[in-house]
Amino acid sequence: MNRKIYSPLLTIITFTILFSMGIKLQAQQLPPDKIQNYNEIAVKIVRSALLDKKGYEWLKELCSIGPRLSGSENSAKAIEWAKNKMKECGFDSVWLQPVMVPKWVRGKIEKAYISKSKKLNGKKLTIVSYGGSVSTSISGITAEIIEVKSLEEAKKLGDKAKGKIVFYNRPFNNGLLNTFEGYGKTVDQRVNGAIEAAKVGAAAVIVRSVQANYDNVPHTGVMNYEDGVKQIPSAALSVIDADFLSKAIKNEPDLKITIKMDCKTFPDVQSYNVIGQLTGNEKPNEVIVVGGHFDSWDKGCGAHDDGAPCLQTMEALDLLKRLNIKPKRTIRCVLFINEENGLHGGIEYGKYSSVSSEINLAGIESDRGAFTPRGFSATTDSLSLMKMQSWLSVLNKADIEWIRKGGSGGDVGQIKNAKALFGYVPDDQRYMDLHHSDNDVYTAVHPREMELGSAAIAIMSYLLSEEGL
Amino acid sequence: MNRKIYSPLLTIITFTILFSMGIKLQAQQLPPDKIQNYNEIAVKIVRSALLDKKGYEWLKELCSIGPRLSGSENSAKAIEWAKNKMKECGFDSVWLQPVMVPKWVRGKIEKAYISKSKKLNGKKLTIVSYGGSVSTSISGITAEIIEVKSLEEAKKLGDKAKGKIVFYNRPFNNGLLNTFEGYGKTVDQRVNGAIEAAKVGAAAVIVRSVQANYDNVPHTGVMNYEDGVKQIPSAALSVIDADFLSKAIKNEPDLKITIKMDCKTFPDVQSYNVIGQLTGNEKPNEVIVVGGHFDSWDKGCGAHDDGAPCLQTMEALDLLKRLNIKPKRTIRCVLFINEENGLHGGIEYGKYSSVSSEINLAGIESDRGAFTPRGFSATTDSLSLMKMQSWLSVLNKADIEWIRKGGSGGDVGQIKNAKALFGYVPDDQRYMDLHHSDNDVYTAVHPREMELGSAAIAIMSYLLSEEGL
Repeated sequence: MNRKIYSPLLTIITFTILFSMGIKLQAQQLPPDKIQNYNEIAVKIVRSALLDKKGYEWLKELCSIGPRLSGSENSAKAIEWAKNKMKECGFDSVWLQPVMVPKWVRGKIEKAYISKSKKLNGKKLTIVSYGGSVSTSISGITAEIIEVKSLEEAKKLGDKAKGKIVFYNRPFNNGLLNTFEGYGKTVDQRVNGAIEAAKVGAAAVIVRSVQANYDNVPHTGVMNYEDGVKQIPSAALSVIDADFLSKAIKNEPDLKITIKMDCKTFPDVQSYNVIGQLTGNEKPNEVIVVGGHFDSWDKGCGAHDDGAPCLQTMEALDLLKRLNIKPKRTIRCVLFINEENGLHGGIEYGKYSSVSSEINLAGIESDRGAFTPRGFSATTDSLSLMKMQSWLSVLNKADIEWIRKGGSGGDVGQIKNAKALFGYVPDDQRYMDLHHSDNDVYTAVHPREMELGSAAIAIMSYLLSEEGL
Repeated sequence: MNRKIYSPLLTIITFTILFSMGIKLQAQQLPPDKIQNYNEIAVKIVRSALLDKKGYEWLKELCSIGPRLSGSENSAKAIEWAKNKMKECGFDSVWLQPVMVPKWVRGKIEKAYISKSKKLNGKKLTIVSYGGSVSTSISGITAEIIEVKSLEEAKKLGDKAKGKIVFYNRPFNNGLLNTFEGYGKTVDQRVNGAIEAAKVGAAAVIVRSVQANYDNVPHTGVMNYEDGVKQIPSAALSVIDADFLSKAIKNEPDLKITIKMDCKTFPDVQSYNVIGQLTGNEKPNEVIVVGGHFDSWDKGCGAHDDGAPCLQTMEALDLLKRLNIKPKRTIRCVLFINEENGLHGGIEYGKYSSVSSEINLAGIESDRGAFTPRGFSATTDSLSLMKMQSWLSVLNKADIEWIRKGGSGGDVGQIKNAKALFGYVPDDQRYMDLHHSDNDVYTAVHPREMELGSAAIAIMSYLLSEEGL
């Protein structure tokens, strides 16, 4: 064969083969009969979730206990409730994993008011203490206000801040599509505001409540102290009152407010992760974890954060169980305690996962509210991602549109050597109106939206169980 | 060249070329600099929508007028309001297109109660008359109930139905992912129930309210009569009362209820489509219509159906205007009157579109509520669809995930010879709890969800205007 022809011919053949391989990689598909079978199962799961609304009924019971802050009496009751519910469901094994957790108590006094002004004396300001904050003295802190928009601005206050209350007032960034991103751009004021203010000698900190909507219901959340820096009280101020106060101190710069808080941190207490599983009937040693954090803040009842999402992962197992679907691999629900102010439950399960002889195949976290499903965010290799993307026509039965590379969640993020870690991603437009606040209650959860999430997680974990990675 | 080699070489080359063409068709993309430019514009549109919330503010004004049933005084006020608002926005042209519309009035009496029973006499049943229904006599209709689950069952009643009230009680199909599909599987009872019941001699019809949730707020909607068949009164019964009544007549089959309704149909009256446009600065004769139906039922204030979606299409133009973006082609907002009980506005605009010298490039209808965006359903050819799908990375800035073949909407569906007709598709999980009922009010609309829809429609119409089809 003529060498001159042979060479371009080889190139063309190689090109064509590589091209075909590329196409195959992109379009990797399950055989049609398998897809059809999975589709039928997915439709059954969705129907059962939407018609039975079992997870939504559970949420009613869970919310009747009250909020579930780590170390609280309610959290112990909720743990007992979940353990019994998993047993009632007939999961193959149900157990508690001991975890030591912090115990912070809000106390009974939590108030703020204008205490030195020409016209506004006595005007109430709605605050909530941030989780982990120290209290004020019984007589409270009375001081002038100094308003800033960022940690950088606070750092530069110098002596001007001495003895004053630093007021962080940068609004939530509402111009972004993703509300978690908007949150991320504002929450530094809550998390590290007290540290920077204390460094310049401030007596306390109030922070414009970190939330997307406009109302008078401030949102709590975790805040940090730094070793060697004075611990000063820190609280959220409702956004309506933040605007009011900002205007008031422009008119009257020497206006004073008084803050009184009697919150307190106690020694760590014993708590538990609640765990239940359907044991795989072919590869029981390969484990798919689904879960959320079972603790909540002590406002509202932690319905979207993270009660309903926890129950979605519990219902995912129950959906398979009630439809008599037996997974090849083990699907394990872990309700992690203490994500909000310590992550101790996640860390404890992570330790177990690193010493256990089990294979940690995957972890799916549900901690972004219980709204209509959108997708799964996945931390995994490209080949596994492509494999899972070939399942999208099945997952679409529960309104899942995509699987993209991205983060998973704080708790399942602790699982060691997992092949894939996922965050379940529902719509997020209403989430930042509710979370960590008195707005996060049972009635804020829509039954169909929640149940579709249960179905999406059930289908995803079942596919992982049958197909592996 | 050796013929033997030449032949397979040609085959391979041809194969490779065809393959590459296939790939191109699938992955047709705008040049990167154009994509970047469109992305920047899309982000600006989204930010402006979310931060200004102008459409949501308009909705407050529109809802303060009240519901906008065709031919009502409110609908005339709303038309005047919208015309003035479009002028305030500075659209290039604003005008009213005359349309004759039906006028049906609910009247003042609308009640039902149990009137012959051992224990339940006087028990109130919550009903709403269906749009277009005839009234009862002043003394009402008192009769026994005969329950059926379908039109087929009603047809088979024969003499048993004579003089009785036929009670259609097939529940909403809540096991389906898409609530519009669930609705489609139930609504025949409302639309044609009176016809089939009258054919077997029934005196009136009550229908289990067609809705996805479970409450005491019945949903109205349009119903049909047939020439030559007696017109009998027809009303929705709340789902809670439907379950109550069903149980009551099982215990007491000769129980009677009384229905009183004084609704009435008047002669057609003059009304209008409200039209405003940004005239294209390069191809003004090529028109992209965006719109929804401006009439609503007379319950609630038609916030999701179809006030907010109408205002999204109006705001789509205003978003381009306020960002000083000048479209190449004409983008026209049409607020169609009378979709709910006649479609006369859509038909009238359709007539105009067929005689006008304009090129009807595209129509986008927003009539599925104002929830978080999901996609666009498109009636178009495959090449145009692929072209538009190559814009998805831009549309994704407003949370649009897909453009799929599918229906558009009743109103834009009347536009003649359009290259593409679209339905804007937001999430639908909460829609069937609200529409056509007292639940469909301002507070049921979430500002971010609504505003993302305005942005999605603005971006889509702008891309159509710049790229054509």
